Amino acid sequence: MEKKTIDPLPTLSYRNGALTLLDQTQLPARMKLNKYKTAAEVAKAVKTMVVRGAPAIGVAAAYGVALEAQRSKHLPAPAFIRAVQHALDVLAASRPTAVNLFWALKRQRTLLMKGGNPNDLAAALEREARRIHEEDLAMSRRMGEFGAALIGRSANILTHCNAGALATAGLGTALSVIYTAAAQGKKLRVYADETRPRLQGAKLTAWELQKNGIDVTVICDNMAAFLMQRSKIDLIVVGADRIAANGDTANKIGTYNLAVLAKHHGIPFYIVAPSSTIDLQVPEGKAIPIEERAPEEVAMAGKENLAPRGVKVWNPAFDVTPANLITAIITDRGVCRAPLARSLAKVKQLEI
Amino acid sequence: MEKKTIDPLPTLSYRNGALTLLDQTQLPARMKLNKYKTAAEVAKAVKTMVVRGAPAIGVAAAYGVALEAQRSKHLPAPAFIRAVQHALDVLAASRPTAVNLFWALKRQRTLLMKGGNPNDLAAALEREARRIHEEDLAMSRRMGEFGAALIGRSANILTHCNAGALATAGLGTALSVIYTAAAQGKKLRVYADETRPRLQGAKLTAWELQKNGIDVTVICDNMAAFLMQRSKIDLIVVGADRIAANGDTANKIGTYNLAVLAKHHGIPFYIVAPSSTIDLQVPEGKAIPIEERAPEEVAMAGKENLAPRGVKVWNPAFDVTPANLITAIITDRGVCRAPLARSLAKVKQLEI
Repeated sequence: MEKKTIDPLPTLSYRNGALTLLDQTQLPARMKLNKYKTAAEVAKAVKTMVVRGAPAIGVAAAYGVALEAQRSKHLPAPAFIRAVQHALDVLAASRPTAVNLFWALKRQRTLLMKGGNPNDLAAALEREARRIHEEDLAMSRRMGEFGAALIGRSANILTHCNAGALATAGLGTALSVIYTAAAQGKKLRVYADETRPRLQGAKLTAWELQKNGIDVTVICDNMAAFLMQRSKIDLIVVGADRIAANGDTANKIGTYNLAVLAKHHGIPFYIVAPSSTIDLQVPEGKAIPIEERAPEEVAMAGKENLAPRGVKVWNPAFDVTPANLITAIITDRGVCRAPLARSLAKVKQLEI
Repeated sequence: MEKKTIDPLPTLSYRNGALTLLDQTQLPARMKLNKYKTAAEVAKAVKTMVVRGAPAIGVAAAYGVALEAQRSKHLPAPAFIRAVQHALDVLAASRPTAVNLFWALKRQRTLLMKGGNPNDLAAALEREARRIHEEDLAMSRRMGEFGAALIGRSANILTHCNAGALATAGLGTALSVIYTAAAQGKKLRVYADETRPRLQGAKLTAWELQKNGIDVTVICDNMAAFLMQRSKIDLIVVGADRIAANGDTANKIGTYNLAVLAKHHGIPFYIVAPSSTIDLQVPEGKAIPIEERAPEEVAMAGKENLAPRGVKVWNPAFDVTPANLITAIITDRGVCRAPLARSLAKVKQLEI
């Protein structure tokens, strides 16, 4: 079996008081790196999806707090605290659905609350951001290993949106499973839903899989059912933005669609997400806030009107897949199966 | 109840030896009318989707034959026959899936085979095209009436692609049902799948419904499941390109997706199509030829690359919904319910 080597991507990096993000709104046309020095800039990058993917958003936000602390460490303690708290608030308001954002900010907030002099606190917040970053790399690796073990020597895999090296600091969540299986020499054919309206599947997933020599075919979202009917799919792997305590999972709009199709066709449907995506505070999917984005994302392509002017558009960025449609949730701490409420609680207890 | 008046659209018209088509590739930006004087031009208009929708393709093709006959009626009989036969072949090669095309061409071919002098034959082929056109108007009206009877005083309806006034000579197939119900004063809210890759839902359905004052909201195809989960849809109506003898139905890619979702959510799923769409020669869906179109339709938007260069794309233009997922097929001759094999055969016998 041919074993593949997978290159990491410069999705996000931190050096000398600056966060560098690969501008994902420019892919696949060009690889543009943007530098950020304030929390407000990072929040804007999250909101405009320069960086996206639940784990990557969490890491970027942690660095956003660290950046603001570095900028403010010369201030008297009360002003420093206010500045960092403001940074936490601005970052928290960037996107509502992915819980990793709030999880990372909570870690920074907890540190801040311990108090201390601004210099020490700024150093501690930077260390914590680096730790979150490194944990993310390790989690990505472990999800890849747990997931790859579920894949046979050859498989046709469908994925949705981008849950790859562009969505995390490491090789991704769902795509880490694919990369790891490919590195083990398994023969894979991947189908990528283009993922309207922002086309992360066509623009990002196809790009990074192609770059790494993985056999990938792009389809429109509405072709997935026909592909399954023709028996071309062995399993589905997707990421997650928030997993409720009962296993209901919010992920990119269209995920629930695939889960229903998977059930109809008897195809295993896997969620791949780090434990930071599990939110035990939220009992079930209904309670997960779902971001609705601007109609223009659907109705326009650049400056061209796709739909007639003034027509109504509904543009939820995420949907919720009920736990009973999920075969298993592959985490960095192991594979959770039904009853998910119990297995997810166990994974969460194992968190560092 | 407020009753709506519905205006017809200049989708296609025939006068003075020329076929005029509303160029649907230019909508919703502009209403451009193109004139066609040869069968080859009409075939190209069908292939490039200037005119689309199974019934409209049938009518346009019938006129294409008539145009060629008019152009060739000064020729000696054998040359005339050859010219018209060539026109039939060129038109038959334009698109493979919609059976209405072949049905209309068969009617013209049968006429041609009766023989006669070129002048008389050309006149007969023109009359037959007009008859097919008028029948289409009448069928559209009757489908609207049969279908509207199935809709309550208020309803949320999901539709896919464009099965409207732009897809037929009359008010459409699926949209004729909606227009007729609206004209009866029923309170409707329509959701239109944008219908990737060519966006006929966003560009055409939203345009014509908006133009006629029908409440319409555009969604991406992958949002339909979430909409159904939130109980926002009472019924689904779509058109058809070919219905096999057992009821399996080929329609725009994404239709099968909706049918599976409808079953999962317990939502009635209706096909609306004239009897000319029923093909008793084809026993079941598997035998329906499915057109695959160029990868660029998916991978590019105008001159912009959406997906990375060179990436593989699968772009089937249609899919097949098995009969068992269809609540009923609404035809111009009545509503066909299970067992569809029997009810479709009955409808076909009633055909003029």
